[in-house]
Amino acid sequence: MPSASKKVPFPVGEVRRYLEPGPIVLVSSLWRGEAGIMTMGWHTVMEFTPSLVGCVIAGGNHSFDLVRKSRACVINLPTLALADTVVGIGNTSGRDIDKFATFGLTAEESTEVDVPSIAECHASFECRLHDDALVARYNFFIFEVVAARVRPSPRHPRTIHYTGDGAFMVAGKIISRRAQFRPGML
Amino acid sequence: MPSASKKVPFPVGEVRRYLEPGPIVLVSSLWRGEAGIMTMGWHTVMEFTPSLVGCVIAGGNHSFDLVRKSRACVINLPTLALADTVVGIGNTSGRDIDKFATFGLTAEESTEVDVPSIAECHASFECRLHDDALVARYNFFIFEVVAARVRPSPRHPRTIHYTGDGAFMVAGKIISRRAQFRPGML
Repeated sequence: MPSASKKVPFPVGEVRRYLEPGPIVLVSSLWRGEAGIMTMGWHTVMEFTPSLVGCVIAGGNHSFDLVRKSRACVINLPTLALADTVVGIGNTSGRDIDKFATFGLTAEESTEVDVPSIAECHASFECRLHDDALVARYNFFIFEVVAARVRPSPRHPRTIHYTGDGAFMVAGKIISRRAQFRPGML
Repeated sequence: MPSASKKVPFPVGEVRRYLEPGPIVLVSSLWRGEAGIMTMGWHTVMEFTPSLVGCVIAGGNHSFDLVRKSRACVINLPTLALADTVVGIGNTSGRDIDKFATFGLTAEESTEVDVPSIAECHASFECRLHDDALVARYNFFIFEVVAARVRPSPRHPRTIHYTGDGAFMVAGKIISRRAQFRPGML
């Protein structure tokens, strides 16, 4: 797996930069020595400060139990190079296998939560459970991103975006409309 | 504005196809003759059946009041050709201007809700408010998509995905990993 550059700290209030475009992410979790990784596509930024991210973790997932118990997770951002790994992780359950070992991923120490990050990912957003009001009804967790680390390059990683039916859209070119924005609307 | 083909009905349970990759969308609304359009980037699919979409509509938006009162909206999917329009809509308030008129957009009749869709968009997802439990705390609305209409071509529209700071990522190439998915995981 490529690991072009090391992740460096990134402002938690700006995680929209990576999450708002809707990439597939890998959620790592840990509870009493048991680690899990799941593929997640249903998530949204909800607030800048505190930095909130809402997401659906289906009740059937092994990760659901780990996250509910530890009240923490890391949202890791994979890129195109990890597409096969992303699919493999989505196809399997942490009840049966150790996903770090099976998929050759490196558990990297996090800074604020007791959950390993995935070294091979472009960015890692360390989260604490902020609000579980909608977990019972919708499996919807609201996390606060308490620490973020991002590789400085490339500036625009080739994230992959699930469109259903086994297909992903790969992040394309970047266009700027900065000059047209009112200040304060950026 | 291009209008290559007319929208045709699409299964509401499959709107993830368009929304899960995280495109910027245009939310149209109507209450007592007053119409609004807002740009939205904070949304996520939450369930297939019923077809649920959760999203943040900030309290300061004119659309917030319209949607809260009518308990309905249409989530419209713009493509690259509408990038300038998307920015213009995000920069202005429906309190000051009629956005359909100002931006030369065509109000198209919807099928299930009393809110106009935007004809120039690739797809329109008609929504009814399903759950407002988190509106007070997070401006987070959960909508049910009750009808969906999509242009048959192109099959993969060039959606735009906001990355903050005035920049958008344009949807790139499509890669399939269908053969690697376990049936039932697609």
